[in-house]
Amino acid sequence: MLHSQLAADCHVLCVWPCCHVLLHRNAIVPWFILVPETEATDLLLLQREHREAILDEAADVARFVQQHWQLAKINFAQLGNVVPQMHLHVIGRRPDDDCWPRPVWGNLSGEKSYSDDDLEEIRHRLRSLHPVKTL
Amino acid sequence: MLHSQLAADCHVLCVWPCCHVLLHRNAIVPWFILVPETEATDLLLLQREHREAILDEAADVARFVQQHWQLAKINFAQLGNVVPQMHLHVIGRRPDDDCWPRPVWGNLSGEKSYSDDDLEEIRHRLRSLHPVKTL
Repeated sequence: MLHSQLAADCHVLCVWPCCHVLLHRNAIVPWFILVPETEATDLLLLQREHREAILDEAADVARFVQQHWQLAKINFAQLGNVVPQMHLHVIGRRPDDDCWPRPVWGNLSGEKSYSDDDLEEIRHRLRSLHPVKTL
Repeated sequence: MLHSQLAADCHVLCVWPCCHVLLHRNAIVPWFILVPETEATDLLLLQREHREAILDEAADVARFVQQHWQLAKINFAQLGNVVPQMHLHVIGRRPDDDCWPRPVWGNLSGEKSYSDDDLEEIRHRLRSLHPVKTL
C-alpha cells in the first residue's frame, strides 16, 4: 500500500520483484522513487541480502536514467523524514538543471509534465528490465 | 587523497578496508561521511560486489549511530554535486533536531563541536569494527 503522499506526487510505472517503481510527476529533473515492500524504514538497517536486492533495482533505474537522458550524474538518497514509508530517490542531475548543485528536496522552482508518450516509453523500457507484477 | 572540502569539513576517524570514515565537524547532528577509494562518482553505477562492500561499511556506521545516539532514523545519501569525489552521507536524525524534517544540506542553522573525549570514544568504537589501515 503506497503512502498517499507518494501516490499523489508520482506516476506508478511498474512493480518489480522488490519495489514499486514511481516517477515524480515534475519532469523538470528525471526523478525516480523506488518503494520496497517492507515495514522497515531504513535501508542501511535491513538484512544484507534484502538491501542488495533493492539496490540492484535502484542500480537498474540509475543506469536507465544515465542512458535515457544521457546524464552522468545520479543523486541517490533514502531519507524518509516526511514520508516514513521507505522509499529510495534516484535522480538524474546535470550542471544546468533547475537547482544544481543543491539537492532537489525543497529546492526545485520549475515545473514540467511528462507527455503521455514519454510516460509510455519510460514505462515500456523499465518493464523490460525485470519480471513485473500486475498492479 | 581526500578532497580538500571534505578534509576541511570533517574529522578523519579511521580508514576501513573500503572507505575513509569521516565525521562532520558540526556536532549538531551525528553526520558521518564515508569516502570509498574509487575514481568513480556514482555508487549505483559501481560493480555490485564493490557497491556491496561499501554498503556494508555504511551499514556498520548506521548501526553505530543508532546505538550510540539511540536514534532510530538514518538519512542516507550519495549526491556529489558539490564535491565530485564519491562520498556517502550517513546521518542520524530525530524529530526535534536542528532542521527536521528537511535534509541537512544547506539547512543546518546551529553549530556545535565534538569534545576531544567524544571524538576519542567514537574513533575507538569505529576502529573496533573493521581492520583499520594506518593513516
